Amino acid sequence: MVVIGFDPGSAITGFGVISGRGNRLRHVEHGAIRTSPKQSTAQRLQSLFQDAEKLIARIKPDAVAIERLYFKQNVTTGIQVAQARGVLLLAAANANCVIGEFSPTEMKTAVTGYGRADKEQLQEMVRRLLNLSEIPRPDDAADALALAICQIQFGAVQDRIQSGA
Amino acid sequence: MVVIGFDPGSAITGFGVISGRGNRLRHVEHGAIRTSPKQSTAQRLQSLFQDAEKLIARIKPDAVAIERLYFKQNVTTGIQVAQARGVLLLAAANANCVIGEFSPTEMKTAVTGYGRADKEQLQEMVRRLLNLSEIPRPDDAADALALAICQIQFGAVQDRIQSGA
Repeated sequence: MVVIGFDPGSAITGFGVISGRGNRLRHVEHGAIRTSPKQSTAQRLQSLFQDAEKLIARIKPDAVAIERLYFKQNVTTGIQVAQARGVLLLAAANANCVIGEFSPTEMKTAVTGYGRADKEQLQEMVRRLLNLSEIPRPDDAADALALAICQIQFGAVQDRIQSGA
Repeated sequence: MVVIGFDPGSAITGFGVISGRGNRLRHVEHGAIRTSPKQSTAQRLQSLFQDAEKLIARIKPDAVAIERLYFKQNVTTGIQVAQARGVLLLAAANANCVIGEFSPTEMKTAVTGYGRADKEQLQEMVRRLLNLSEIPRPDDAADALALAICQIQFGAVQDRIQSGA
């Protein structure tokens, strides 16, 4: 299966594409969708939506994985992130993708085995699991790859449940 | 000018359509876009986006007015509302509408002259300004009409500034 992970943001949305099944993972690509601070909020959302649509059309993923949001601090930034997340969910729904939503703790547990892993531990495990020579940049793309890993592992668990293993 | 106001929500998004200029206001229609709790978040956003697109295509507004969000409490609901707001902004941007964003205080000041007006005062003023026999329902639609009034008054102020009056 092929999965695109998205780490949403208004200014920068990380994405990571992985193919694989269970623990057999292959890195396909990663990067970031950036929008201009010169644009209005609505224009930035439009630009993000269009770029996400193009990426999904090119990759044709089986599933899209996206971070579940929780805000305790900086709620104003949180509103921007949630608006960006809304248009990413719309792009995924329009393409009939399966959508996986994972909390930061679920993501860290799936990738490092430890729900309270710090950013450096998470990024190093993403690098190792995908046999990359360097840690993926920007940080948002590393998180997006981690989300995609999460979705593939989750899919493997579902397969075992369905086959009764 | 014709304005659609939107009061965004995941389950229910109020809308209100007004034509007019300055204090000459004419009520066109109001109502609510509802989504099913049986659907996933992404499906609800897709349904809201499609219905908003159809409304905008039918009404062909000069501008769209939408509430500016602030969250102090109940941030989880706030995430849902911000995601809904994201797809409404996208629908407005796709249709090349002017977009006005107003805080609850700006909306109350524009409609009642008092930024701390309560819900009942606001609704009663919306009813009077639009010569309606009853208070518009649901509440979300009344708020959406208030946002549209706000945009029309704001447009009138802009006109005066541009003409040097």
